[in-house]
Amino acid sequence: MTGAAMGPGEEFDLIRSLVRGWGERAAGIGDDAAAVRVPDGMQLVATTDAAVDRVHFRRDWCSPDEIGYRATIVAVSDLAAMAANPIGLLVALTLPDDCRMVVGPLGRGIGEAAAACDTVILGGNLARGGELTLTTTALGYARAPLLRSGAREGDAVYVTGRYGGPAAAVREWSDGGQPSQDARARYVRPVARLREARWLAEHGASAAIDISDGLLADLEHLAHASAVRLEIALDGLPVIDNETVLDAARGGDEYELAITGPSDLNVAAFVAAFEVPLTRIGTVHSGPPVVEATLAGARVAPGGGWDHFS
Amino acid sequence: MTGAAMGPGEEFDLIRSLVRGWGERAAGIGDDAAAVRVPDGMQLVATTDAAVDRVHFRRDWCSPDEIGYRATIVAVSDLAAMAANPIGLLVALTLPDDCRMVVGPLGRGIGEAAAACDTVILGGNLARGGELTLTTTALGYARAPLLRSGAREGDAVYVTGRYGGPAAAVREWSDGGQPSQDARARYVRPVARLREARWLAEHGASAAIDISDGLLADLEHLAHASAVRLEIALDGLPVIDNETVLDAARGGDEYELAITGPSDLNVAAFVAAFEVPLTRIGTVHSGPPVVEATLAGARVAPGGGWDHFS
Repeated sequence: MTGAAMGPGEEFDLIRSLVRGWGERAAGIGDDAAAVRVPDGMQLVATTDAAVDRVHFRRDWCSPDEIGYRATIVAVSDLAAMAANPIGLLVALTLPDDCRMVVGPLGRGIGEAAAACDTVILGGNLARGGELTLTTTALGYARAPLLRSGAREGDAVYVTGRYGGPAAAVREWSDGGQPSQDARARYVRPVARLREARWLAEHGASAAIDISDGLLADLEHLAHASAVRLEIALDGLPVIDNETVLDAARGGDEYELAITGPSDLNVAAFVAAFEVPLTRIGTVHSGPPVVEATLAGARVAPGGGWDHFS
Repeated sequence: MTGAAMGPGEEFDLIRSLVRGWGERAAGIGDDAAAVRVPDGMQLVATTDAAVDRVHFRRDWCSPDEIGYRATIVAVSDLAAMAANPIGLLVALTLPDDCRMVVGPLGRGIGEAAAACDTVILGGNLARGGELTLTTTALGYARAPLLRSGAREGDAVYVTGRYGGPAAAVREWSDGGQPSQDARARYVRPVARLREARWLAEHGASAAIDISDGLLADLEHLAHASAVRLEIALDGLPVIDNETVLDAARGGDEYELAITGPSDLNVAAFVAAFEVPLTRIGTVHSGPPVVEATLAGARVAPGGGWDHFS
């Protein structure tokens, strides 16, 4: 994506309007590619994530601002899962003809999300197409990125935040209703737990994943990557009002973090620093890569996550 | 995109098959984000580019291998325009249900393009959707990236390669015919001029752009970015057989480079090193940011490029 110093054409007018709207937050845009410094000694952390109309969001559920905001946070959340500091974003938009009028609000939501993550828009791409799609690349850096594969026998398993909001919102919308304000906010304004993740990494976290597919499904990814068995007791999982623990543990789109780390992690200090719950829900054991979850002493079936191709 | 160490599900099976196909070229995949080193003292260069079915390619014109190959090279070409060395790629695929069978060949084309650029696949994203889309993020590094804004009065304007192939191929296909082998190859197997760009940067190039919108349109971008007037004589532009110079200068999808640099650049050494034409086509002057192009002494109308939204 290139900025003000371009030739004529409607494509470039749309890009110019986006770049103008982002102001100082997109001040570097204007070449074939973005050029930016990664601090010496740091690793580059990079991720890309697509939000496709009617697959990852619905235009009758969310405003264009919210669609832009959410797509951006979802991508940055993968940086949080690596305990990385954001460097900037590349924003690739595919716009159907009937969506050109919403470029302004979409861009505003993207800009607000970038601001919430204290990062900038480095560039992107604008394409015509039949299906509104936002593909966000998030770039960051970390000295020692937190991986999925670091969980070790004896570690405790923790989660940030409260669960069930996004699943409840989607269920209400799908049933023709309106979700509660709390559930709706958790869906349309997720939070990338960037500062929280860095704190956890600094305090001994050994592995992390962000909860996009559902807590149980994502714990399964972590168990596979670390080749460990996770014993999880869901009883203490913080859940929003009027939602069951099981639905909350299976629902996707949370963008909270599950981490493994020392069993004596200073939870009170975390909560005081971020005003976000940090809850121990289990323990890492050696053994086959499975998640053994219980609720009120009864075994919970594995998985139940979100498979975009099922 | 995550690799082998994931839980079950068809989405992950597709990802696993892609990663398996890429082999060592995607060996690092497996976390929420990719982590990779940028050499100390270098700037990160990053770009993202979308290829949308029926906008940027057609499935009845190209095989899935070719679609994957071309989408990848198109993104990497933006690194070439900055004279950057590739670090790796993030590949975001949106797959309609009827395209799942072509994931293998699409991935093969992507892998072949990565190999041609001597780079790797760091990660990506797989989403269901109605429209086959490949959004490629290319990451690279350069000590001093070549920008569009560096052209200075007195510089010469050069182009790499021969023009007109992609436009001729698209015209033939659109008319129901089959393009010549040469024209077709230029469309389906473009080359990212990575080594050529680094050579040019090392030999004093002051600005560069890759030719995606059309030579005249892209020169206009460069003129705007550098705030210079470009005098261009199209008479010497290398053109493929049976194509007019004007069509060749207006056609998009070339992925050759236009650069500005010293008028005494050693063209013979470049041609000997890369077996690719390097042709001087003009001169940089002070003045308003316009392209003044002539052919056989007659003035050529400006622009005529490829505007995805017109």
